[in-house]
Amino acid sequence: MSENMGGLKRTHMCGALRPENVGQRVVLMGWVQKRRDHGGLIFVDLRDRSGLVQVVFSPDSSAESFAKAGGVRNEYVLAVEGKVVPRPEGTENSALPTGRIDVICYGLRILNRAKTPPFYIEDGIDVDENLRLRYRYLDLRRPEMQLTLEMRHRTVKAVRDYLDQKGFLEIETPMLTSSTPEGARDYLVPSRVNPGRFYALPQSPQLFKQILMVAGMDRYFQIVRCFRDEDLRADRQPEFTQIDMELSFVDVDDVISLTEEMVVRICSEAIGLKPELPFPRLSYQEAMDRYGSDKPDTRFGLELADISDVALNCGFKVFSSAAASGGLVKGINAKGCGGFSRKDIDDLTAFASIYKAKGLAYFIVTAEGVKSPIAKFFGPQEIDTILTRLDAREGDLLLFVADSPGVAYAALGALRVHLAERLNLIPENLFNFLWVTDFPLLDYDQEEQRFVAMHHPFTSPREEDLGLLESDPGNVRARAYDLVLNGIEVGGGSIRIHRRDIQEKMFKAIGFTPEEAVDKFGYMLEAFEYGTPPHGGIAFGLDRLVMLLAGRKTIRDVIPFPKTQSAACLMTGAPGPVDPVQLKELHIRTEVKQPRTAKQG
Amino acid sequence: MSENMGGLKRTHMCGALRPENVGQRVVLMGWVQKRRDHGGLIFVDLRDRSGLVQVVFSPDSSAESFAKAGGVRNEYVLAVEGKVVPRPEGTENSALPTGRIDVICYGLRILNRAKTPPFYIEDGIDVDENLRLRYRYLDLRRPEMQLTLEMRHRTVKAVRDYLDQKGFLEIETPMLTSSTPEGARDYLVPSRVNPGRFYALPQSPQLFKQILMVAGMDRYFQIVRCFRDEDLRADRQPEFTQIDMELSFVDVDDVISLTEEMVVRICSEAIGLKPELPFPRLSYQEAMDRYGSDKPDTRFGLELADISDVALNCGFKVFSSAAASGGLVKGINAKGCGGFSRKDIDDLTAFASIYKAKGLAYFIVTAEGVKSPIAKFFGPQEIDTILTRLDAREGDLLLFVADSPGVAYAALGALRVHLAERLNLIPENLFNFLWVTDFPLLDYDQEEQRFVAMHHPFTSPREEDLGLLESDPGNVRARAYDLVLNGIEVGGGSIRIHRRDIQEKMFKAIGFTPEEAVDKFGYMLEAFEYGTPPHGGIAFGLDRLVMLLAGRKTIRDVIPFPKTQSAACLMTGAPGPVDPVQLKELHIRTEVKQPRTAKQG
Repeated sequence: MSENMGGLKRTHMCGALRPENVGQRVVLMGWVQKRRDHGGLIFVDLRDRSGLVQVVFSPDSSAESFAKAGGVRNEYVLAVEGKVVPRPEGTENSALPTGRIDVICYGLRILNRAKTPPFYIEDGIDVDENLRLRYRYLDLRRPEMQLTLEMRHRTVKAVRDYLDQKGFLEIETPMLTSSTPEGARDYLVPSRVNPGRFYALPQSPQLFKQILMVAGMDRYFQIVRCFRDEDLRADRQPEFTQIDMELSFVDVDDVISLTEEMVVRICSEAIGLKPELPFPRLSYQEAMDRYGSDKPDTRFGLELADISDVALNCGFKVFSSAAASGGLVKGINAKGCGGFSRKDIDDLTAFASIYKAKGLAYFIVTAEGVKSPIAKFFGPQEIDTILTRLDAREGDLLLFVADSPGVAYAALGALRVHLAERLNLIPENLFNFLWVTDFPLLDYDQEEQRFVAMHHPFTSPREEDLGLLESDPGNVRARAYDLVLNGIEVGGGSIRIHRRDIQEKMFKAIGFTPEEAVDKFGYMLEAFEYGTPPHGGIAFGLDRLVMLLAGRKTIRDVIPFPKTQSAACLMTGAPGPVDPVQLKELHIRTEVKQPRTAKQG
Repeated sequence: MSENMGGLKRTHMCGALRPENVGQRVVLMGWVQKRRDHGGLIFVDLRDRSGLVQVVFSPDSSAESFAKAGGVRNEYVLAVEGKVVPRPEGTENSALPTGRIDVICYGLRILNRAKTPPFYIEDGIDVDENLRLRYRYLDLRRPEMQLTLEMRHRTVKAVRDYLDQKGFLEIETPMLTSSTPEGARDYLVPSRVNPGRFYALPQSPQLFKQILMVAGMDRYFQIVRCFRDEDLRADRQPEFTQIDMELSFVDVDDVISLTEEMVVRICSEAIGLKPELPFPRLSYQEAMDRYGSDKPDTRFGLELADISDVALNCGFKVFSSAAASGGLVKGINAKGCGGFSRKDIDDLTAFASIYKAKGLAYFIVTAEGVKSPIAKFFGPQEIDTILTRLDAREGDLLLFVADSPGVAYAALGALRVHLAERLNLIPENLFNFLWVTDFPLLDYDQEEQRFVAMHHPFTSPREEDLGLLESDPGNVRARAYDLVLNGIEVGGGSIRIHRRDIQEKMFKAIGFTPEEAVDKFGYMLEAFEYGTPPHGGIAFGLDRLVMLLAGRKTIRDVIPFPKTQSAACLMTGAPGPVDPVQLKELHIRTEVKQPRTAKQG
């Protein structure tokens, strides 16, 4: 039978006991990790959030406790009253922080019993993730999950302590707000009081944080839930958490240096790492040229080389016509891969084609010169230039893509990472932070036949490019910056537009009529007329950041109750059917027949 | 024209300058509170979040700045480069923290201009609240609003610092979750990926925080947004913020004492107050008996007295039959109100009738004895007892309600507060914290003809009342506690049920069939079988707490972007109409015709 605590108070956490505690009376409460009966004694490894300790039951210390202990099973919840003793010589366990002591139990209460869990409560289990999510309360008992959540807690604590010191106020913005034009798909919430109207859950507090700057709040931050109803890829969740900041009277460098210090503080408090400052900075253009990506992983080399100039006049038509029509011919040196088989190279070509590369040309560098189906199209001078550009040595494999800049960057950028993984070039435990700056303000959307904002339409153009906003929008650079960690974007922000006239030009550049601009963002334009300070900010994806720092492979491991790729919670069954009466109150009907019960099928 | 910052960096906040800064070069950035031209000089009060400072422009210091300053208007945004000087003798302003210095400007940049705001940017304005909400970015510039948000920030910072020290982890729970049986009305979110299914926004993270205890997280907290789609009264918002906590292996006293220390920390860091510990505790029954309320305001007396025993045998039928039929006859002494007119007493009777009291009997205590239409029904001994019970003196007015206990408590409890306000008995700047404990577990719902949980169905019965759960549910006491501040409930919690068998009994007591229990809370019942520790917690209404500490009258003043009573945001226009395409993707239709544009009418 289960017992109540009987007035017992826990005195220590299990994992905290050390030889210094020898002789003390302790009361521990926790879960049975394992029970072993041995030599007339019963040994129980008792576990709580802090770790494990070995509790020893003997008929001599307490016959009653010994008898009860015989009935305990894994995951039973116990209250143990006992005395800390040194372990007998030769039985110490140096792998366990509490391995030099035992607790001799003289009072045992079984606080709750447990069925046999569907998987082991231990690290590194090989279990279907859906089973873990279904029994998340058991999954979260595993030490690696507990440590990750603890690390997440330390991360947000570090952020809050730092920003508080820097004069930021944490200010809450609404969750029930307006639909976001120009954003991703919104989650909508029907209003009962306003029939036919809907709230949207925020994709980010962008407009509100800018409004707070208009309101003179000076320095705002919030660790805030955001929502995007997108098709879920491996590393997306319907709801995610953002470290969101905005500052008045600042320029790019101010935001960057303040943020860098924050990141150092996070790393130091979450994982005891102290990255060197300042972080390197690359312009968008340089990042694309060298890495084929605006979020390059700089933990390894394999940089791209440009041979468009050589290609322009070469005899290989695919190269020369790409170069002549505004495209790029770029290559990458797969160091030491000269021995790759035909099949290996075919596989790489197939990989590149995922990114729409129509082909992958290659040179194998041998002692006898370049071997390649296309070598014949190049003169010795041209070959020499190419080898020099790609820093080629005997035994290397050079791979080339000739295509539009977008495709050439994407295919080679991805190939670069692919090769690094295949060649095992990525060092463990390296945290390479990097700023990417000077993004283009606008991006031409072929489908919509108009420019769209590369970040969002509130990003400020660089002062010196202001004149181009009407004449040559594609060449306007933004006062934007992204923080990249090991090839993953963990933060991004910009200095914002703070003047109505420029904001209106921006809306015009992305194809809004003045009426549309007022319709969609009227209150923002109006606010800008009442004394808006220059301001800028940044937002970090907390889930991704914690995932990277914790060395996990998916953000689902750093979110306590994540959803599956079909946006469902396997533990609670959300989303579920609802009572038709509820829908009626909300003035909506579903086009799907409702099941009879609230149970997830 | 507006200018950019030209590389200037702010060196000081306006409100921070003191005589110690005299002689320093400073760069300030802020808003024009007021401009005055006087004696060939221009004076500008420059304002930022920290306060005001007086900037002086003279043709001698900078002819260019002086000329520009002539064009600035209220709420223009300026960057001022200048030098701190002492104010000329006799011009100091001791009311202003910066009142002993001036800043002589030698470089002025106009960062942005401003239209004339629709109301003054100053404290204590008398403006329609809807106008303030429409221009919230201007309303929030007012110092009292900025100070309130700063205080709110300090409150949550104090909570986080304290709980972190006490071993709590802040853990995020989902916003897209399941509908809450037995709760208030949910906000629903249609799922695109799961046609016909809906998420609900959480009314509280109750189930998740208990699941976190099952998961061995030991001590959880979260400052978290919650949602209730209720008809909005003065002090309700569709979304509100909760300080939410849960602890394993604790009993009532553990939660109370930990929480008390937290409240002291909040008070001390938010408003510099140090309440004495421990807070007084009252049982639910005592609170009802003495104050007619389970959230009594103890800043004043006017306690209720019970005269049911006297009433039972008196000749006044209304009294005797109420007392005989399980009702109560209770009175309150309106001290010194013996001179109240017939109309005054009629008004009080009308007031009591709001709470369903069918009448209000009274005694006026005079030197000649009791004056009352019902005095004749009482013998001298009875009168004496009543006067003693109510501690009556000459000049007092005694008011009585004879009714069911519910009505008698409610009417006299409300009357008590009403009289205290009318008689000006409530002292300012007093913060009376109070615990109310030992609530009934269940409350009989006449409408639904069943018991419902008084707090929620996860609240644990007291051990000694467990046996009554089936035999006499109405008399089971809960291990629940509410924290009351000045007559308002600011927090509430309980020790929870942690055993499946007891939880099932509880569900049965509130009328669930076993199938319904599994249907609604199956995953919780299942979790209880895998080793659930004893646990309990509490949740605080952050908005209310901050409102009380800041001395504001409505929670709208402590929420940056609150909604109106029709659940609308007057600034952004949320909720708004949405594109029919969006609804189609969500598999829903609205029963209301959609307007053509997204503009709020």
